[in-house]
Amino acid sequence: MSKIEVTLGIDVGGTNTAFGFVDRQGAMITSGSIPTHSEEGADNLFKRLFSSSDELFINYKDDYEVIGIGIGAPNANYYKGTVETPPNLQWGTVNVLEIVKKYSPLPSAITNDANAAAIGEMKFGAAKGLKNFIVITLGTGLGSGIVVNGELVYGHDGFAGEIGHTVYDFNGRQCGCGRKGCLETYASATGLVRTVSELLCNSMANSELRELKYNEITAKKVCEAATRGDKIALEAFEITGKILGAKLADSVAHTSPEAIILFGGVANAGKLIFEPTKKYMEAYMLNIFKNKVRLLPSALTEGNTAVLGAAALIWNEIEK
Amino acid sequence: MSKIEVTLGIDVGGTNTAFGFVDRQGAMITSGSIPTHSEEGADNLFKRLFSSSDELFINYKDDYEVIGIGIGAPNANYYKGTVETPPNLQWGTVNVLEIVKKYSPLPSAITNDANAAAIGEMKFGAAKGLKNFIVITLGTGLGSGIVVNGELVYGHDGFAGEIGHTVYDFNGRQCGCGRKGCLETYASATGLVRTVSELLCNSMANSELRELKYNEITAKKVCEAATRGDKIALEAFEITGKILGAKLADSVAHTSPEAIILFGGVANAGKLIFEPTKKYMEAYMLNIFKNKVRLLPSALTEGNTAVLGAAALIWNEIEK
Repeated sequence: MSKIEVTLGIDVGGTNTAFGFVDRQGAMITSGSIPTHSEEGADNLFKRLFSSSDELFINYKDDYEVIGIGIGAPNANYYKGTVETPPNLQWGTVNVLEIVKKYSPLPSAITNDANAAAIGEMKFGAAKGLKNFIVITLGTGLGSGIVVNGELVYGHDGFAGEIGHTVYDFNGRQCGCGRKGCLETYASATGLVRTVSELLCNSMANSELRELKYNEITAKKVCEAATRGDKIALEAFEITGKILGAKLADSVAHTSPEAIILFGGVANAGKLIFEPTKKYMEAYMLNIFKNKVRLLPSALTEGNTAVLGAAALIWNEIEK
Repeated sequence: MSKIEVTLGIDVGGTNTAFGFVDRQGAMITSGSIPTHSEEGADNLFKRLFSSSDELFINYKDDYEVIGIGIGAPNANYYKGTVETPPNLQWGTVNVLEIVKKYSPLPSAITNDANAAAIGEMKFGAAKGLKNFIVITLGTGLGSGIVVNGELVYGHDGFAGEIGHTVYDFNGRQCGCGRKGCLETYASATGLVRTVSELLCNSMANSELRELKYNEITAKKVCEAATRGDKIALEAFEITGKILGAKLADSVAHTSPEAIILFGGVANAGKLIFEPTKKYMEAYMLNIFKNKVRLLPSALTEGNTAVLGAAALIWNEIEK
């Protein structure tokens, strides 16, 4: 009997690096995680990683065969195979695919986590069968992956899909990128907290959030407060959805997707974020696009979605 | 000796419809124009058009062979072959490609004029050899065509590439689309005139433009005044370039093109518009994209560029 083919998906994070073996249908056969220890360099990480993954795979090797390696990492460049001075890894710029080749002869590919999420949705999730869609990752920041004609948009330099750094307000909030008013300063976990803080000073409404220090407020706590009917928390979600919806209308005007998928922590707030985002996206959209674009939750809900995305990346390359 | 292959390019306008026979290298063999008379319907237009073009082609038929028909028209849908209630044609929604098939068995394709311009630049102009670029048409409005991985982005519904209707200021100028603050209300021939009008009231500077009625001011006159050193005219170009540059930075964050090509009337103002647009595009751009994106003038400068674009559309289909 021939073995079942799987790919190895790797998600490089600032603290931990997760990995897993994923079959053609998106089932995770087995998975693991090791500390990243980025101060010890990229080569050290992958040496330890392949040692761990080989060990884990021993029990599966009679039935399964690994045919490729997909990697999601911050500031990754799909074309060059590099990771370029990521803020949360002490690597500088390093060619990750060259390192991987030292340890494995298998085909490999790398991209950033938001792009990997988009390919994950396309292969295994909410975007199955779709040719034109956008995945928005609402985490600490706002990541995005844009798919056009069934292909991820990397742009000429490998860095396309930075919707989090389109500008909502040229005189707005300071962004980590050095500019002002980027969408991710409003629509993200940190953006939601900033909006709560703005409402706490501008509004007179009572709120349980007034009992917390700024640094104690998290998107999760805002979500819990909103669920209990807290007015400030509810308004913070409304404003977040309004700004996200308004800017998504701009993105629709670029690539006219049939769906936009919301992924990540803030998206887990469900209708608290989906309802205002949908309402304002429609309100701000050019007539010809109205009532055409579906706003969907991620369908990568089980297990480590970032590892699934990384595995999907190389499945996508292999099946091209 | 075998005949030289040409395509028939057709540009449908509100007043006149131009056409021409274009070879594989983008040379226009011969061209003509007929009144559109849109009140008489689309079928009537194409009946007259093919009669005129056949007559014109008689002198060339010993040496040339027509192998396809490309059409540029307002509100055209590439997928459906339709033109959908264009504001300047009294056609309602009509399937143009079905009409064309009544008169010719040749392969045909249709898209809007901005997309046709983008394909024209790719086949014959400033974007030759480029895989990722954007063409911005600065005419009465702002049209755009986005190319990703060597393919025009039509989106799932055929209407992608409406950068003119991304929003610069949510509380800004009224747009013909019914919303407020769209980019084309600032960056276009009419946008430039609106900016002049705003400056005439806000500024105390002398200006020859104060001697004109609002309805007499044109982009061409603003350009001439700027060339003579008129302060209001110069500032109007500066503001137009600032707003265009700021929003192009958003477009770069979507598809990371290697070049943006400015096309159409306002682009003919040369450095008056290119210098501020480039300056502010760089100023507003996310770090990773800075100093990578070339801002280029159209290289479709001879003859009827809209006809060249329409001819390029079908050349592109045939060569796929």
